[in-house]
Amino acid sequence: MTSSREFAAIVLAAGKGTRMKSRTHKVLHPIAGRPMLDHLLATVDALQPTRKVVVVGAGRDQLEQALGERADTCLQEPQLGTGHAVQQAEESLSEHTGDVLVLYGDVPFVKGETMRAMLDRLHAEDAPKVVVLGFEPDEPGHYGRVIADADGRIEKMVEFKDASDEERACRLCNSGVMAARGADMFDLLRRVGNDNAQGEYYLVDIVNIANADGDTCAVISAEAPEEVTGINSRAELAAAEAQWQREQREHWMAEGVTLRAPETVFFSYDTELAPDVTIDPNVVFGPGVSVATGAHIKSFSHLEGARVGEGAQVGPYARLRPGAVMEKDSFVGNFVEMKKATLGEGAKASHLTYLGDAEVGAGANIGAGTITCNYDGYFKHKTVIGERAFIGSNSALIAPVRIGADAIVAAGSAVSRDVGDGDLRMVRGEQVVKPGWADRFHDAMKKKKAAAKK
Amino acid sequence: MTSSREFAAIVLAAGKGTRMKSRTHKVLHPIAGRPMLDHLLATVDALQPTRKVVVVGAGRDQLEQALGERADTCLQEPQLGTGHAVQQAEESLSEHTGDVLVLYGDVPFVKGETMRAMLDRLHAEDAPKVVVLGFEPDEPGHYGRVIADADGRIEKMVEFKDASDEERACRLCNSGVMAARGADMFDLLRRVGNDNAQGEYYLVDIVNIANADGDTCAVISAEAPEEVTGINSRAELAAAEAQWQREQREHWMAEGVTLRAPETVFFSYDTELAPDVTIDPNVVFGPGVSVATGAHIKSFSHLEGARVGEGAQVGPYARLRPGAVMEKDSFVGNFVEMKKATLGEGAKASHLTYLGDAEVGAGANIGAGTITCNYDGYFKHKTVIGERAFIGSNSALIAPVRIGADAIVAAGSAVSRDVGDGDLRMVRGEQVVKPGWADRFHDAMKKKKAAAKK
Amino acid sequence: MTSSREFAAIVLAAGKGTRMKSRTHKVLHPIAGRPMLDHLLATVDALQPTRKVVVVGAGRDQLEQALGERADTCLQEPQLGTGHAVQQAEESLSEHTGDVLVLYGDVPFVKGETMRAMLDRLHAEDAPKVVVLGFEPDEPGHYGRVIADADGRIEKMVEFKDASDEERACRLCNSGVMAARGADMFDLLRRVGNDNAQGEYYLVDIVNIANADGDTCAVISAEAPEEVTGINSRAELAAAEAQWQREQREHWMAEGVTLRAPETVFFSYDTELAPDVTIDPNVVFGPGVSVATGAHIKSFSHLEGARVGEGAQVGPYARLRPGAVMEKDSFVGNFVEMKKATLGEGAKASHLTYLGDAEVGAGANIGAGTITCNYDGYFKHKTVIGERAFIGSNSALIAPVRIGADAIVAAGSAVSRDVGDGDLRMVRGEQVVKPGWADRFHDAMKKKKAAAKK
Repeated sequence: MTSSREFAAIVLAAGKGTRMKSRTHKVLHPIAGRPMLDHLLATVDALQPTRKVVVVGAGRDQLEQALGERADTCLQEPQLGTGHAVQQAEESLSEHTGDVLVLYGDVPFVKGETMRAMLDRLHAEDAPKVVVLGFEPDEPGHYGRVIADADGRIEKMVEFKDASDEERACRLCNSGVMAARGADMFDLLRRVGNDNAQGEYYLVDIVNIANADGDTCAVISAEAPEEVTGINSRAELAAAEAQWQREQREHWMAEGVTLRAPETVFFSYDTELAPDVTIDPNVVFGPGVSVATGAHIKSFSHLEGARVGEGAQVGPYARLRPGAVMEKDSFVGNFVEMKKATLGEGAKASHLTYLGDAEVGAGANIGAGTITCNYDGYFKHKTVIGERAFIGSNSALIAPVRIGADAIVAAGSAVSRDVGDGDLRMVRGEQVVKPGWADRFHDAMKKKKAAAKK
Repeated sequence: MTSSREFAAIVLAAGKGTRMKSRTHKVLHPIAGRPMLDHLLATVDALQPTRKVVVVGAGRDQLEQALGERADTCLQEPQLGTGHAVQQAEESLSEHTGDVLVLYGDVPFVKGETMRAMLDRLHAEDAPKVVVLGFEPDEPGHYGRVIADADGRIEKMVEFKDASDEERACRLCNSGVMAARGADMFDLLRRVGNDNAQGEYYLVDIVNIANADGDTCAVISAEAPEEVTGINSRAELAAAEAQWQREQREHWMAEGVTLRAPETVFFSYDTELAPDVTIDPNVVFGPGVSVATGAHIKSFSHLEGARVGEGAQVGPYARLRPGAVMEKDSFVGNFVEMKKATLGEGAKASHLTYLGDAEVGAGANIGAGTITCNYDGYFKHKTVIGERAFIGSNSALIAPVRIGADAIVAAGSAVSRDVGDGDLRMVRGEQVVKPGWADRFHDAMKKKKAAAKK
Repeated sequence: MTSSREFAAIVLAAGKGTRMKSRTHKVLHPIAGRPMLDHLLATVDALQPTRKVVVVGAGRDQLEQALGERADTCLQEPQLGTGHAVQQAEESLSEHTGDVLVLYGDVPFVKGETMRAMLDRLHAEDAPKVVVLGFEPDEPGHYGRVIADADGRIEKMVEFKDASDEERACRLCNSGVMAARGADMFDLLRRVGNDNAQGEYYLVDIVNIANADGDTCAVISAEAPEEVTGINSRAELAAAEAQWQREQREHWMAEGVTLRAPETVFFSYDTELAPDVTIDPNVVFGPGVSVATGAHIKSFSHLEGARVGEGAQVGPYARLRPGAVMEKDSFVGNFVEMKKATLGEGAKASHLTYLGDAEVGAGANIGAGTITCNYDGYFKHKTVIGERAFIGSNSALIAPVRIGADAIVAAGSAVSRDVGDGDLRMVRGEQVVKPGWADRFHDAMKKKKAAAKK
């Protein structure tokens, strides 16, 4: 979805975000595992803008570090309103000849098709000077209203406090998102004054100025008000996350995924699921997970950075961490953690196991309580387990170590040396039996306990 | 709840279920752990029908395998509408002299009392030829309407598209569920034509045909529209599951069960709970669980095929698998899995333990990290632990093995031989101490790490 | 928030609570981890009453035991209505000269400011004899109505069944909560009769009696109907818990806590969170938890009686039990349980570990599968681990035991003796290798398995 027009995106993100009560910049708070700013930038990127400029202010360092090379920044200091903010980008865009689209870092879910429609509208036959993104909230409340005719040509932008009763009855509100040709935008902005209670320069004023010039301005309506929801508090952050999750759940169900209790499954921005995947109640996806058809993710599982193969069984209580790869029909059971580990086709790790930096061959069976000891406090080492190998319960595999195909490690062994194909290794301590010792111990302890109570 | 009348149930299940996007037949998708078709058949069975015929088509093999001996099947091929589908059952029912009740595999929650009321209505004084199950949805939308008088005598069945405004204002809709005497049903069906846009034979037409004959047809209203909700997509499947769960939660709370957060507890179709059971947030029940009075199921527990005794404490993070039996006042703590295992009265397995194919005596204490090694890769073996035995932490009990009453297994032991009553068994490796070794290791590793960074 | 007036609180709790179907007294059922009665008493206590009298009846012993010295009790037996119940407290309050406030054990969420406003109203210029707490439910239904003028002066209290249509249209209902000067309360009660269908003495009648005397009675309105919701069934208990949790989630988000999925996080009555704490979906707090700023509680974690330090990482699947202390930047990972244990600054216990009765020094690393064996069946013993110590995976630390600073315990060791600073300890069994044994075992077992199938 690219735009046919050259355009630059200006993203306003200079606000303090006081209501978040956070040391983290507001637009860096994540939704579905990704900072809200990144959601917006990803949408913009899909339209292939020629430039992206983020207007920064409070928390500038954090934001510049997070952005890296992904966008230019310009500083708004002091912060004198939205119009003033957009003006700060003028210098950065001095060589830009196309359109500009003004977006907000805390309004992250404007759709790509909406952005494109705004830019297209700018170049329609009636060539509006400014295109505004309007929306119709359930409760228009104190939002500024967009008074427009049936063709979306704006008669007037009006603040709620200045609006007549008739104007207030109009449900179309101003989202603040705007598009204009670059030259028009900055020309108009120079004519915006700050003669208002806050002494600020408001972006919205460019519409009334253009109108006064006799120029056309137009409004496009967001399909649903959620598209332009602003996020100013943790409660609004949670509401945006909830809305995002609801849409994803509906999306995946429509694609043929079973969600037994959709409201208890949490996806990441990049989760990939095939049809006929089944997900039981209470499953959380971190970033980077793909699940193939026929796989079953059971309750209380937590997956991130993992690939789950066709027909694989996961959980309950499976934790797949980055680098976990489950091949076809493999099985990870309860209280099992995988990290940078591959479980071959049909291999099983059913209970209470940690597989880190490991390769497990097809058909191998990893007994309950098996631990790959992959870390010596300084370096990570690898465990390689052959096909059809059988690792007895409660074993410690001290990496680097290699267990051969069809080999057996006896239960309770701490294995620090390689085991050949088809060999058995057992590590056994001395078996000590003390007949009657326990009885004598019980007697002594009961006396001690009785004495302690006195 | 048996019916006083002889009747055969015809269940239509020939549809492709395309919107499910699934390799599994639509009516085999589970709700509350049981295929939706089985929910319906269980309700029908409680009325003791003389015959059950499932009309199959797409996915026939899957369905026949799932049904086994539980119902007869007949094939509808090609699929020419609901009337045509019912006709396919005629041969199977050639010797059946009673009533027939037409149901749908994807409308699984019609209540037994509703079915019985339909059959009873058929034999009321005015002897209707056909009895239709109607319902009043919140949004009647495009459903076909049932135009009936105050006594439920049908004047007309009308498709939405053919309905007058007055008829559309009628909220009583046709669920498709119908009852008739067997002979009437098949006689009427033979007169149904396919002169419609789809070229299909519609079951509903039998009502208008009977009406045209001057015969009475009657409608019975479902108490709530949920009773006749059809399931055609994963979203509708999830909605049906949610509705079922809501009803169960209300049911169990009314029975004296505490659900701290009812919306986070998921029951199975056959869960059995006693009064004064407490269930904390986030608990999932698979099939086959019963819980006795005073038991407390803590958060993040997952139970299936398990029996939890009076006053037992379960979880958090307890996983009880099929065959788990917790006797009175026993305790299973966090990250503990039980499978085909019995925990005697007052016995405890508090942490990080796997008990498989095991019998634990009353009052025994299973230390943290205990694993019963029940599988040798080929066969499962049994562990028997005596009353009041004490299994030290991190022990591996290599089955078959028997630990006596009051016996003690020392921590960290891999026990492969029986331990007598009151005996102590410890399996101990050689204790090696290397003074200063760790300091030298740290020095060497720090150098290596520093070198690696260069 | 103390009251400026001397007052005694009378809490009615003599009812049978039949609809709870419980062996536990209704007012002892917990909400947010605390009995509902205790919620009410905590609110009352903050106003510093001179006396608290709980009127008991059914389940008296349970209630008296739960109350201990926290309040006086008096017995209502038989139970002849709310007026009769309040009268039982007269003797206990014979020396009390101040006001009395009548509350209900099953109406636990009346706010302190409401109580104070009632007492203040009693001493306003028009000096009402009785002050009633009214509320406006969404569905006034069959509640008794309070007919009052615009200044809250009551004209009439009227039962729903006796109310005129005009009176029924009034939405202000009687909560039953009342305040009066002590002498007035008991004088009026003596004049209440039981000439009604139930033959009971109703507290509400004191208002009409005072009115008939020409005295003023006044009503105060609860801000929201939830404040006076009564709890009579498990469903109402769950609804009260849900309401409480909703308010807490909103509270903590407003304080700067991120709740990714607020509806899945369950707080306790005393949970304390700092700003910039992040809580992922599905987290449960038991009593006694505080979390410092920057800490991250991941999914499926369960905390009670724990202190989580600044920047600490918890979970997923972390279980912190009473006495767990995580210092700054420490880390507890999946399937890890802590109980009476301290994890020093930056120390890590990442997987499958039990730390009980333990002190872990700053920077120490506890390997996967480590178990502190703290219990010998009779006494608990302590494990002390030094700073920067490295405990290899699958180790059992058999307490009492002390591991020195910078010391290393090799993987798979069961350590029962102290390890000095900078020393290595390894406990190793004999490494036995049997070349080809596994191959021979597989052959033999496959034959046995084949034979078993015949």
